[in-house]
Amino acid sequence: MSAPSAVRVELGARSYDVRVGEGATDAVAAACVEAAPGRRVAILADRNVRDLHASALEACFTSRGIAVTEFTLPPGERAKTLATVEDAARRLVEAEFERGDVVVGLGGGAATDVAGFVAAVTLRGMRWAAFPTTLLGQVDASVGGKTGVNLPEGKNLVGAFHQPVAVACDPGPLGTLPAREYRAGLAEVVKTAWIGDPELLEMLESDPPLEADHPRVAEVVRRCVVVKARVVSEDEREGGRRACLNFGHTIGHAIEAEQPGRLLHGEAVSLGLVAALHLSVRTGRCDPDLLDRLIHLLERLGLPVRDRELRTDRVLEGTRRDKKRAEGRDRYQLTTGIGFVSVADDLPDGAPRAAIEFLRR
Amino acid sequence: MSAPSAVRVELGARSYDVRVGEGATDAVAAACVEAAPGRRVAILADRNVRDLHASALEACFTSRGIAVTEFTLPPGERAKTLATVEDAARRLVEAEFERGDVVVGLGGGAATDVAGFVAAVTLRGMRWAAFPTTLLGQVDASVGGKTGVNLPEGKNLVGAFHQPVAVACDPGPLGTLPAREYRAGLAEVVKTAWIGDPELLEMLESDPPLEADHPRVAEVVRRCVVVKARVVSEDEREGGRRACLNFGHTIGHAIEAEQPGRLLHGEAVSLGLVAALHLSVRTGRCDPDLLDRLIHLLERLGLPVRDRELRTDRVLEGTRRDKKRAEGRDRYQLTTGIGFVSVADDLPDGAPRAAIEFLRR
Repeated sequence: MSAPSAVRVELGARSYDVRVGEGATDAVAAACVEAAPGRRVAILADRNVRDLHASALEACFTSRGIAVTEFTLPPGERAKTLATVEDAARRLVEAEFERGDVVVGLGGGAATDVAGFVAAVTLRGMRWAAFPTTLLGQVDASVGGKTGVNLPEGKNLVGAFHQPVAVACDPGPLGTLPAREYRAGLAEVVKTAWIGDPELLEMLESDPPLEADHPRVAEVVRRCVVVKARVVSEDEREGGRRACLNFGHTIGHAIEAEQPGRLLHGEAVSLGLVAALHLSVRTGRCDPDLLDRLIHLLERLGLPVRDRELRTDRVLEGTRRDKKRAEGRDRYQLTTGIGFVSVADDLPDGAPRAAIEFLRR
Repeated sequence: MSAPSAVRVELGARSYDVRVGEGATDAVAAACVEAAPGRRVAILADRNVRDLHASALEACFTSRGIAVTEFTLPPGERAKTLATVEDAARRLVEAEFERGDVVVGLGGGAATDVAGFVAAVTLRGMRWAAFPTTLLGQVDASVGGKTGVNLPEGKNLVGAFHQPVAVACDPGPLGTLPAREYRAGLAEVVKTAWIGDPELLEMLESDPPLEADHPRVAEVVRRCVVVKARVVSEDEREGGRRACLNFGHTIGHAIEAEQPGRLLHGEAVSLGLVAALHLSVRTGRCDPDLLDRLIHLLERLGLPVRDRELRTDRVLEGTRRDKKRAEGRDRYQLTTGIGFVSVADDLPDGAPRAAIEFLRR
């Protein structure tokens, strides 16, 4: 087994490594023990993931003499409530965990978002580490320290920036993902490649990693982590540059929220990317051929590029709840070409509506 | 009207001023507008305080052309739940507040703790300012950026460090406090004086500010803020020095939690201070005369120094949930004399029990 790659997320005193590849789980468990010697570990595991992967993770700690307590989170997005956070915080306190102990999130992006937020607020801040088991969690939620939960009004409306001790992107668990969920994660891969790695975009086009056992999956994850780490290092708290990571997400989030549970996050992002390209073309920023190229790639990856079930008015209303709105204006990340994404808040009236209507074509 | 004093809390990029004295409310409203020009303001006000003080505060913003929305919090400690936080976050989102807008807490320490935590987590972090209306809130909760709520298992077990834009300690509202609540705040004054301002301790003994209209109240508040600002500047996140602020609080918190609602926080702290002195004397750190001197001062200020209703075992159990426990040991702040408080985690077995039994004398 070769050593997993380490991608450094540079954030001064809060810097940490994302380990990518086989052996990442064990390497990150070792990093936790090193960062918090003699401390206890609480694994917060997605209920559906627990049976598959918790015992292997637990063994990485117990083999180092570290006591592990396991708590179960509701599956997937259902975990992302303040009620779950309160429940987890109470269980940690009840089990006499202390500030210096380590909370570990095991599961998809939802589980790691919740675990990170539980760590951020319990006892006003515990250490934490993430072991994402989905492609989406590995390429997106693994870098940047965004943690949080949803409100009935929208996704991720309550949360904190709380950097982990380390993150493991182990290809092993990806093999147990349902095919639809794996493919949904590819939408974030496309987004990330578009923002900052044109070569990765070409790789996805020439040799698409359609299945989780594709030999280049770890390489794809690693390249995404590198892009995201670079962006986050420049702008930890989303003052400016980091906003490019929301490419495809203003409309994507609103689509996801409009009919909760119908689409996976990555599927909504796929539609959101198409909408963002449409806006970019319509406002004269971007060559129309690039919209076709994006649509072709997303279709090839098995991702949705149109959706007649969207309710345009409700999606538009949803964009108004976006966290990154500023001074009463919606802010969209638009592109002038592969590798170039920047904010626009001066869209002509009707352009977002036309982009959503385009998805309903 | 003389200008209010400004006490700087030095925390690098997160530094801010606490304004103390007449005119502090207006000065801090001005600071908010300067920090967030053109932004909206959401006042989260303790329901019992709102009728007395919200309109004056609101006028400070509207006179500067700033739109204000008011939300009510449950009174006092009842506000300190995650349910209240969720409710406030939802109302902010529903009213289309944005990250750059300002949350303002108006009320006692509970209201400002909740408002600060709402600001910390809503949209992953909004600006905030505190307008504490109680003596406790002004001398204690006003400095340091500790925000949070309670769990059924204990106080302040969920929260965040989130520094405000500015804090107003205006003597005006203190005059509307019930006498018992005002006096309870004096316990934190005694604690703060003991930690870092021996001259203030002598002032309390020679000329006790028994009522809120005492001419030296603003001076007392200012001196406490100076001590606390100094400690917090040295140690924002409670790595070491800041722990001295918990003098009297390990047992005090446990007393408060043991029969919720029976004692005010300051009353429990008064008992906790007596217990901390008893522990300090018993372990040979401190002259027994100082215990007598503390008891005499607290009694003079109308604060409890004994309590036969305490249930020793339950108080002891409560100390085990303290956030500042480390490596499985209870940590007590003990004193070797006025101006000298430091941590001890090597107490002889039975010493905490004896201290609680002393309170039951």
